[in-house]
This record gives sequence, structure tokens and C-alpha cells, in this order.
Amino acid sequence: MPGGEFRPKAFAGEVVPFFVTAFREGHDLIGVHLRLFSPSGDESLHRMVPLGDGFDRWSALVSLLEQGVWSFRFEGFADDYATWEHAAELKIPAGVDVPLMRETGALLFDRAVKEKGRPVAERRALEGAAAALRDPLVGDEVALGIVQDPAIAAFFADRPLMSLVTVGATNELLVERERAGVGAWYEFFPRSEGAKRLKDGTIKSGTFRTAAKRLPDVAAMGFDVLYLPPIHPIGRKNRKGPNNTLDAGERDPGSPWAIGSTEGGHDTVHPDLGTLSDFRAFVRAARSAGLEVALDLALQAAPDHPWVTEHPEWFTTLPDGSIAFAENPPKKYQDIYPINFDNDPEGIRAEVLRIVRHWIAQGVLIFRVDNPHTKPLQFWEWLIRTVTAENPDVVFLAEAFTRPAPLQGLASAGFQQSYTYFTWRNTKEELETFLSGLATETADFLRPNLFVNTPDILTEYLQYGGRPAYKIRAAIAATGAPTYGVYAGYEHFENVARPGSEENIDNEKYEYKLRDWPGTEERGDSLAPYLRRLNEIRRAHPALLQLRNLRVHWSDDDAILVYSKHLDAALSPTGAADTVLVVANVDPHSVRQTMVHLDTRLWGVAPGEPFDVEDLITGATWTWSDHNFVRLDAFNEPVHILTVKGR
Amino acid sequence: MPGGEFRPKAFAGEVVPFFVTAFREGHDLIGVHLRLFSPSGDESLHRMVPLGDGFDRWSALVSLLEQGVWSFRFEGFADDYATWEHAAELKIPAGVDVPLMRETGALLFDRAVKEKGRPVAERRALEGAAAALRDPLVGDEVALGIVQDPAIAAFFADRPLMSLVTVGATNELLVERERAGVGAWYEFFPRSEGAKRLKDGTIKSGTFRTAAKRLPDVAAMGFDVLYLPPIHPIGRKNRKGPNNTLDAGERDPGSPWAIGSTEGGHDTVHPDLGTLSDFRAFVRAARSAGLEVALDLALQAAPDHPWVTEHPEWFTTLPDGSIAFAENPPKKYQDIYPINFDNDPEGIRAEVLRIVRHWIAQGVLIFRVDNPHTKPLQFWEWLIRTVTAENPDVVFLAEAFTRPAPLQGLASAGFQQSYTYFTWRNTKEELETFLSGLATETADFLRPNLFVNTPDILTEYLQYGGRPAYKIRAAIAATGAPTYGVYAGYEHFENVARPGSEENIDNEKYEYKLRDWPGTEERGDSLAPYLRRLNEIRRAHPALLQLRNLRVHWSDDDAILVYSKHLDAALSPTGAADTVLVVANVDPHSVRQTMVHLDTRLWGVAPGEPFDVEDLITGATWTWSDHNFVRLDAFNEPVHILTVKGR
Repeated sequence: MPGGEFRPKAFAGEVVPFFVTAFREGHDLIGVHLRLFSPSGDESLHRMVPLGDGFDRWSALVSLLEQGVWSFRFEGFADDYATWEHAAELKIPAGVDVPLMRETGALLFDRAVKEKGRPVAERRALEGAAAALRDPLVGDEVALGIVQDPAIAAFFADRPLMSLVTVGATNELLVERERAGVGAWYEFFPRSEGAKRLKDGTIKSGTFRTAAKRLPDVAAMGFDVLYLPPIHPIGRKNRKGPNNTLDAGERDPGSPWAIGSTEGGHDTVHPDLGTLSDFRAFVRAARSAGLEVALDLALQAAPDHPWVTEHPEWFTTLPDGSIAFAENPPKKYQDIYPINFDNDPEGIRAEVLRIVRHWIAQGVLIFRVDNPHTKPLQFWEWLIRTVTAENPDVVFLAEAFTRPAPLQGLASAGFQQSYTYFTWRNTKEELETFLSGLATETADFLRPNLFVNTPDILTEYLQYGGRPAYKIRAAIAATGAPTYGVYAGYEHFENVARPGSEENIDNEKYEYKLRDWPGTEERGDSLAPYLRRLNEIRRAHPALLQLRNLRVHWSDDDAILVYSKHLDAALSPTGAADTVLVVANVDPHSVRQTMVHLDTRLWGVAPGEPFDVEDLITGATWTWSDHNFVRLDAFNEPVHILTVKGR
Repeated sequence: MPGGEFRPKAFAGEVVPFFVTAFREGHDLIGVHLRLFSPSGDESLHRMVPLGDGFDRWSALVSLLEQGVWSFRFEGFADDYATWEHAAELKIPAGVDVPLMRETGALLFDRAVKEKGRPVAERRALEGAAAALRDPLVGDEVALGIVQDPAIAAFFADRPLMSLVTVGATNELLVERERAGVGAWYEFFPRSEGAKRLKDGTIKSGTFRTAAKRLPDVAAMGFDVLYLPPIHPIGRKNRKGPNNTLDAGERDPGSPWAIGSTEGGHDTVHPDLGTLSDFRAFVRAARSAGLEVALDLALQAAPDHPWVTEHPEWFTTLPDGSIAFAENPPKKYQDIYPINFDNDPEGIRAEVLRIVRHWIAQGVLIFRVDNPHTKPLQFWEWLIRTVTAENPDVVFLAEAFTRPAPLQGLASAGFQQSYTYFTWRNTKEELETFLSGLATETADFLRPNLFVNTPDILTEYLQYGGRPAYKIRAAIAATGAPTYGVYAGYEHFENVARPGSEENIDNEKYEYKLRDWPGTEERGDSLAPYLRRLNEIRRAHPALLQLRNLRVHWSDDDAILVYSKHLDAALSPTGAADTVLVVANVDPHSVRQTMVHLDTRLWGVAPGEPFDVEDLITGATWTWSDHNFVRLDAFNEPVHILTVKGR
């Protein structure tokens, strides 16, 4: 999109920091207000605090509860009380202009007394103070006491004596529903859940009915969103066999992303999975279990998709008359035709809108968009704007595994969530930069969804890091951002890759997976209990369900990563402050011990002051201060998730 | 200013880098053009180059010669030749889609042949290439040769085969006259130049006539601009005596910044200096010598300024009826009343505009604005806009020794130049950050003027660094930015401060200075020859007269600072490339030796390749490469200024 303007966004319940650079000429002091207008028209005024970093930046933290379009502006003003207080505090003890300082203060208090809306008690106190400042029998030391009186300062902190008010431009901020920003995602292939090996050795597909039996387990692990790969008919032509081979057998199910066959296209359910009515029942069953279903939106077609004959103009016809396959030269994806958006953009827009509305009508409000960076940015901007105008609860997640500019461009264009580079950020230094960047630089427009694995991504870290690697990555994903995700099989430490690739061998994209969920857990070979605990911790700790409060702390070891997430009592939905400290050994092959160094002021603890922490994984408790010894055994518990108690 | 939008600026002859983030969906390749419209309406198209840094940034370097408002926009397009070339180069050797690749190329060439404006020779070559690609008797290896033919690539580099052109928004860029960005400044107090000690021990003021005798010397040192502190009548009331004392004697001249007396105000010349006609003659004499005169614009008044009785509303009246002095509590400046811009903003604007027009009518086009950060930003924005609309050659320099936000705010509001923190950036690390920042982060709106000293600033570095410190700071100022300045007395190493202060003892602000310019130079005790050489080097090396081309290089020593300034031949006013390397020992008390490490690719030399350099200070020559040994004796020559020869 030429230009690149975008409207910042937040989610309902998000604690958003507002920043502004404000200063005035000369030495007089100023104050700054943030004025907010909620979608329903409520107006509120927030006093901003100077950051004191020498750059004249001011900030205010506000929890935005209501979904919809907010507007806000900054208002600067001469703070006449503060200017007087600063001068009088220096000049009265120095004996400079003392009568003038006393009279100036008295006049300010006179002015304050006359202001509308000042409480009676406050007015009386100020009348008394003005009289004392003017009384020649009152000594200068007493006058200085009035200048320095914290009670009087508090009156003016609440209701400053303003002049020369300067009002900034009004800006908009879009607040979307909470699930746009907060959620634990789980991904499974419904065809694998309840699939059965028949006596002849072939496998019978799972269905929506059999997959629904797994919903209580997923919900019991504490997940909020269940994401399904495409559920549509799969092309027969050029169907892929196991391990991405070109010679699929008769019973090989093919890749769900090769969408469309004579059985139908994007608006149809794969007959193996059941009927549209079965799907609706599945969505209802998920909702009863506390899970919201997310569907895949992959805008591409198998060669036998109905679009190919009905709308050949939606594809690229080559000079030899053939239709172009998806490719990354010299590699080809023979089971997929990409869409060409240039020949009939209006026709494609209408069809995609029809499909999205169709699935919304079946109860789906979340779409995980496949490869959005291979489609025009303007198309997505239009689609998301159009769909959310009809239903503001719809959420689109961008699977934008691409360069930073297009990834951020898609987020700016309106995607509510984005996959990120999380899977490839594994060292302490990488994670420090990555997590800090998500919480600050891009948080106004990009909401990360930290999937630990996907059917396309099994990183070397997981391939070679053993079981500790799976714990480490899950703990960081679950606490490093308010939205994260797990693709089924992660619990079973499925860490064998197809040689030379970064994905699982015998990839579920091309075949059914029969997994023994209860048996593996009973044998103690499952990560499910750990994931369950992580999700419990998230639900109990609202600080973890915020994006912008992550702060990196320090350790003397190059593999011990330290960060905190803190929420003030006044901003917390529980009314109590919440602080979580994560101390992670990101080297899955080692036992590390080191000192960690904390900026405890972030949660209101003075440097050196002790405080109690409890490890939410093991239940261990310690008394900590700003410098603490830590030992983390990757083979036992590689990560401390600590809560700061009684603060 | 609420909002904070500003129009970027440059100076005539400045080489400006344009940057844009551009990408498209999918894998097809794109190109980007910068389209420029000069103030006189000429249109030009510049092919942008991908930076290749993974962030989809493109750049083009353009030398903007014409003064006035330019406009520009970015245009992205699908680069159909590049997409084909990339695919064919991979697929033909792999035997994939070979006939299709050949026919696709032939079709592209057919299309190119039909385009208007393609030279006949180019068309013939493309017709032949298309025929060969289609000829079954021509082998695939020959076809691959056509794909990789650099001559054909060059046709499309000049005139790409474009489709899906996307045009960005049009933006403006203000190009001001060269002197707004380039100049060597010299500051002297005219009352000191030609002042004489009388027999009774008192001093007779210099005049414009006596000061004019010094103009040839200043010009011979190679300076371009002569800046004069205020030349107006000086208040008698509360006049300051030597060393800022409160009891001035009858013959003490007072501070020139305490402007106004019964003899007149800002539109009047101090009678001791001569008449307005004398001033005009001085300006003419300066111009004949090659010097442009800059005047001080200090918007404040001595207590006996005519404004005080005529316009008491332009000042702040205190509750006790007195007018407020300038102060920084508890300090007071008893010889100065600051202006209050709030009571009669229109009246003040009219008066200041009258004064500025008055001095423009006397031949002054440069104003050094005293303490602009104590006056409203909106006022400056209005004044500069109004004055430059009448005369676009007027230049305002902001003496904004304040925090970064107001300093940058004033620059954004329109000031053509700004004093900076240069005097307080003395270590290698400080200077690296400082000079890089000026060349990149703020260069679109802030032009630095690197004064090495002022009547208000004698840093500890100069107080205690001895004569080497004076050389080091002058060399870095003269080469680190295209505009720098020197206040008279620097040549004489005047390094004694008033105890406890950061300014010269017996400060010229409060008294006359009798300096023996020729005698000191004859004795070999003057820095004038060094300054003269620095200014010669600047004039001979156009790379030094650019702001944005500074790049920091590396050394293994914590006091050896290394930077380069390079200008390509195509962008240079001489038509020849120009490269200057500065290697400075910034520790004035030491002899240092170390390796320096250079990114020689910046001036077109491959890593490891040798090149010849000449030291422009000593005339020494060496053969260098990317890693070089350097020894810098602060007590002899602390700075190498090297030119890269034959490139």
C-alpha cells in the first residue's frame, strides 16, 4: 500500500501506554493530559507522567476495556502551580523575592478557590494557605512549609492550575475483542482424531464426530482456540503422497491445502469428515467445551477445484496454454494452482467474501490465513475492513512467514494476529531482542501468535534439543506473549525430521496420524501436564495476558534469559497487582548457574529490598532481592516461572 | 507545535539519499523509481537500488541543485524482465519448462520492441534475441546465454519492462540556498577589533571602520560567514561589569545582549560602533572580501530599552508592579528583561518582522538567533515562513543549547541551522554516535553548525587539553559537518576559564579584548595557519561540504576516531570522485598507535586492494588498504586528513 498510514490497535482489556513528546519554551513547567473518548462516547482525562529521560517524553498507561473505535488527543498546559512551587522552593530559602513569591502563591490559591468543581474542603484549605502567605506575622519558614506542603501538591496533581492549553490533533485507536490479542491455540487435523487402522492395513479417516471426542482433552489442557487445517475436499489431480512424494496411492488422503475437487471447493466440507451439519455440531461442541474453532483460509486451488473450469481467469495461463503451478523456481508445487488477483480482482473479491460469510454463518469467527504475503496487501486490507464492518468479532491470523516488511505490512493492513519468527529465535540474545521488540516497537499494529511448531516447521532446536527443548520453548511461548500456539504432536516430542528438511518426517500434511493420547500420558511420556500447567498459570496471572508489559532483565550467563511481566493493581482485572518473572535456561543440553539481576522498581520494590517469590511450576519459594543466585537444570526444570508474592 | 509534521529540507548542491520500503506479494521481482519535479517544473526519473538488507528498503542518491520547493514520489512496478530472467536462469539449466521459458522470454522481447522510445539498435538486438529463443535449431545453452546476456540486462536496467505500476503519494522537499548548509563561520566583537588603550588606561571602542580592517585577515583564513554579536545600544541600567559583576564602571561597555537604551533598540546601531551607514559600508566591505555578515537576533531588552516604556505589555509585570528579570531560579540576569509573547502576540510579531526586514534592507541575510528555545515555537515557525516567503535566501541559525526535543523542534519548525552538543562530545565513542546521528537520523530537518567555542562556552576539554585540543576540535568540526564555526581568540588558545565556570575569564561579553593578531602569528603562537589550511582543504574537497555522507570506520584504540566522507564522480560538482578519510587522536595528552579498519567499498575499493592516500595536513603519502597501522602524536599532528588518490 503506497503511503503506509495505519490506525493503531489494541484488544479489549489491553493496558496501552500512550506516549507524547511535549515541551514549551523557556523554564516554566508544564503538564500534559491524555483525553480519551470511548466508542460509546465516554470522555476521560488522564494525567501524563514525565519519563524524565531527557527527551521530554510523557506517558500514561490506560486499560482499554470497550471494543470499538476510540479516539484520543494530548493536551499540554502551563502548570502554574508547579512553576511557582519550583521557583518559591529555591528563592524563599535564598532570600530572593520572598514577598513576591508569597504574594504570587496567594494569588494562585485565590484563582484555584474560584475554579468550578474544586471540593469545598480543598477550597477552605487553600483560602487558609493564601491568608497565611499574606500574613506578615507568618514567618518565611512557615511560608516555605506551605510551598512544600504535600497535601496542597496533591490538590494540584488532581486538578492542575492550567493556562495556555494547547490541544493536539485527535487520533483513532481500534480496540478489538479480547481474543484478537489473548489466547492459547491448539492445532489438530480432524481427519487424524479418531482415525483407525483397518484390518487391511489402510487407515479410515477420522470425522468431525470422532474428532469431537478429543475436544474435552484439548479444553482440559487449558487451550482457548482450536485451529483446523483446511476441511474442504482435496484435489485428486497431482495429489501428494507420504513425505511430499508425487505418486500418491489410491488411499493417500493428500494435503488439505490442495483445496477443491469434483466434490466441491472452499465452501464445501470434505465428505470423509462428514457434512456441513456435522461441522456445525463440532463447532457447537467445541464452544460448549470452552473452545473457539478457527478455520484455515487458503486462497489457492487444486487442479480439479471447480474454480479452474468456471473461472480460468482467476489463474495464470502460460504461453503454452497451461495453468501455472505454484512454484519457487526451480521447485514446483504440482498439487496447487495459485490465484492470479490481477485479471478479475472484483470477481475474486466477491467470491472470497462469499466464502468467508459462509463460514461465519456456520459459527466460525477466526480465520488462520495461509500465505497471505503471496496475495495483494490491498486485497487483505479490503477484506478485513469489509468483514469486520459486518462483524467486528472476526479475527484473521496471518501466516506471514516472510521478510519483516511484508510481515509488518500485513499487520498494518488489518490482520489481528501474525505468526512471527519465534520458532527461529532460540538463543538468549535473539529472544531478548525479539520479545522486547514485540512488546514495544511493533505492538501498536502487530500482535504475535507464538506457535511453538507447525506442520511446516520443526526447527533444529526441537530436532536436537531433546525433551528439555520442548519445555523451554513452550514456557517461553506461553509467557512471552498473550497469544501462543501448539500443533498436536508437540506433547509427544515428535522431533524426527524428514532428512534435509525442517519439517516432521511422515508429515501429517500428507497422511493420517494415529496417536495414543491417554496411553502416552499414562506412561509419563507426554508434555500435556506441563502445557496444562502453563495454561493454568496464564489464566491465574493477568500480567501474562498483556503484550506490552514485558521487560528484559539480566543474568551473567549467556543462556539464562530473564524477563518480567507486571500489572499494577489499578490496571489489573483482579484489582490486585500481578508480577511474573521468567528465568529460562535456553540451552537444553546443560545445567547452568548464575546471578540474575532485576530492576525490581518495575513492581514497586526498592533496589536491595527483599521480596518473596514462588515458582509456579514446582511450588518452591524463595526470598529474593535485586540480585539472586539461580541454578537451572535443563534435564529437570529448565524454566522458573515465578510470581512475586504480596505485591 | 501539536502534530509535528514538517517538510524535509536540503541545501542547493546537497546529495540527498531517498529511501522507501517497497515490496509486493509473492515471489515476482519488482523495481522502484523515484520521480522528481524540480521547482522550475523539470521532471526526472531515478532507478532506485535495493539495499539488500532484508528489510525491502530501496535507495537513490540525487544531487539537488536548484533552490526552491521540489516534489517527489515513489513508483513501484512489477519488473517482468527480472522475474523472467530469475526463473529462466534457474529452470533452463534444471531442464524444467524450457520451451515455456524460451517462449516467455521471446514474448517479453516482442513487447519491449513495441515500446515507444526504445532505441533502434536495442530493438534490433531484442528482435534477434526473440527469434533465437524461438528457433528450435538454437540450443538451450545458447538460450541460457541470452538469458544471462549483460547487454540485454543493461537495456532493461535503463528502461525496465513494467506492469502493475503503483504510484505513491507526492511529497515536498525544500531546497534552500547553499549557504544554509555549507559554510565556515567566524565570530568577532566589532568593538574589540581596532579598540585602543588610551593613555589614561581606559579603552576606546573599536568601530565598524576599524573592524573592517580585520576583514581581509578573516577572509584569508578561508571563512565564509562573519557573525557579529548584537550591534545595538547597550542598556545602562543594571549594566554588567567585567566577569559578570553587578557594579559596572562608567567606562565598562556592558554585554551586547543587554539590548536597548535611550539611544535606541533593536533597529539601531550602537553609537560607539558608528552609524547605520558605517554598518552598511562594513557589510559591503565584508562582501568584497568574500565574507557574508550574520547578525545576532536576541529578542530581549535591557531595562532602559524603548520597548519597556512604549510596550510594557510585552514584558511580565509581577504582582508587586515590577517587571520580571530573566532568571533561572534562584539566579537572576538583572540587565535583561525577557519578552512575554502571550499578552500581545500580534504586536510582537509585527515589531520583530519590522526589525528583521530593517536589517535585510541593510544587506543582512543571515541571523544567529539567541536562545530561541525560550520563545514560542509557533512564533519561529511563523517568522521564518513569513520572511523566507519574501526572501528565500534568508538563513536563521538557532542557538538552541537545550534538550534534544526543543532543539529538534526548532529545526523542524524551519531554522536553517542549529548549534548542537558538539562542544560536549569529546570522546571517540561520543563523537561516533554524534556525527553518525547528524548524518543520518536528523539530517532531513536539522543542519548542524559545529562551533568549536563561543563567548559562552569554553569546555573543560579546551581548558585542560592544551594546544593539541584546539587542533583536534577544529579538525573534527571542519570535516565532521559542512558548516562549522570559530569564535575569535580560539587561534590564540585562550583557555583560561573564570573559576567554576565554563566560559573564558575576563569574558569579551563584558569588556573589550585587545589581541595582537599579526604578532602572535609571527611568534608561531597562533592556530590561524592551521585553520587556514582546514578551510583550504574544505574548499578543495566537495565531499567535506556534504552532510549525509559521513561514515564511521573502526580502530582498535579507544581514542582513535575514524570516519570517511565520499562523493561519487557522478554526484560531484567537479565531475571527479572525492574521498576524504579523517583519523583523529582525540586524547590530547597522548601518543597513540593502532590499527584502523576501513570499509573501502564505500569508495569503490575491494577489500584488500591497495590505494594511495595523501595527508592533506603534512603532505605525507602512503599506500593503504582496508587494515592500516597508524601512529598519531597529539603533541605534533593529532589528526590525519587523508585524501584517497586517483579514485
